[in-house]
Amino acid sequence: MSDLTIWTYDWVPRGPRGFVRDLRLRWACEEAGLGYTVQTIPFDGRETNHLSRQPFGQVPFLSDGALEMFESGAGLLHLARKSETLMPRDPAGEAETMQWVVAALNSIEMVTVPWWFLEISGADDNRLAGWMESRLDQLEQVLGEREWLAAGRFTAADLLMADVLRVSKVRSFGNRPASDAYVARVTGRPAFRKAHADQLAHFAAADESRSAGG
Amino acid sequence: MSDLTIWTYDWVPRGPRGFVRDLRLRWACEEAGLGYTVQTIPFDGRETNHLSRQPFGQVPFLSDGALEMFESGAGLLHLARKSETLMPRDPAGEAETMQWVVAALNSIEMVTVPWWFLEISGADDNRLAGWMESRLDQLEQVLGEREWLAAGRFTAADLLMADVLRVSKVRSFGNRPASDAYVARVTGRPAFRKAHADQLAHFAAADESRSAGG
Repeated sequence: MSDLTIWTYDWVPRGPRGFVRDLRLRWACEEAGLGYTVQTIPFDGRETNHLSRQPFGQVPFLSDGALEMFESGAGLLHLARKSETLMPRDPAGEAETMQWVVAALNSIEMVTVPWWFLEISGADDNRLAGWMESRLDQLEQVLGEREWLAAGRFTAADLLMADVLRVSKVRSFGNRPASDAYVARVTGRPAFRKAHADQLAHFAAADESRSAGG
Repeated sequence: MSDLTIWTYDWVPRGPRGFVRDLRLRWACEEAGLGYTVQTIPFDGRETNHLSRQPFGQVPFLSDGALEMFESGAGLLHLARKSETLMPRDPAGEAETMQWVVAALNSIEMVTVPWWFLEISGADDNRLAGWMESRLDQLEQVLGEREWLAAGRFTAADLLMADVLRVSKVRSFGNRPASDAYVARVTGRPAFRKAHADQLAHFAAADESRSAGG
């Protein structure tokens, strides 16, 4: 019996399916063998219907008994503290994992998400492209020299970095074979595939109940 | 005697002084009463001269005895684990602090830094302005209802969020009185003022040795 609950939307359009960030928490629980349930808040009205629980109107958030926290990165670090599979217990391994979790959030995703935002906004020249190029090149250099980011084995840092990199537009931005192999390696894990399939099934089931109700 | 060393550049131009992110780690050590020394790497050649220690060519990084880690957010969380001043020890207070540390990095700074990047790149219309507006408005709502982000008192989350928000261009982006009062309150702390003055003095001293050597 688990007290972990992952909160996500009851439904989303087809575009973001497979990429909603509840996946990061599902995946982490699957890797760690932690039981969890999934509960939902309405997608319709999301801008204001849960600001008391997530002040930016997003998902996911995570409950662990009486604790509740938003930000997928914070939820991931919380789960990582529960499981050596996600984060080594020795100080060096833990520091290295934490460093690369933050690097995924604040050195890579801080560039890839705004770059993608400009891409879909239809700007003629994407002024974040040079910055993106240089960050992805630096990461390619790291991934050319090692199989995993931290502690010589899979950790929560790989889970997060692969999730940041696997967005198809980001992957198609340039020819980076070590990064491509890395994303394939990390997302080839059974825990990713289960979490991904479960998210797709969750939203597909919502299609059916939407059309049944409508 | 402390084993903590904060690594930063030996010199930077006037523009970024007071904003180089070693300040986050200096400030955290000052709040927590942790002793530390500051060591430097050369600013000239920074793109490649320390990639083995910081793969994105940036500062700061933090040594703690044999541990070394980059990413100011990771260094901050590492220091926070050492001091209850920076992060409460109870699970709820710790979760809330971690959540807001990640929110500062991944929900606010992920918008403010690329927005600023577009501002200085001279784009006619800044396509990140709407996103920035909405995030800062959401944060203004939070800060209108409480004095500190987490646990009802100052934590590492306030240190980081105030550092993200205090950039003058970000502050002048709109009229947000609760956020302004918050930044003034957090950066009015003696530990911030000491860390800020120490960074300015560090780079000013480098000016003198540069001109003496040149």
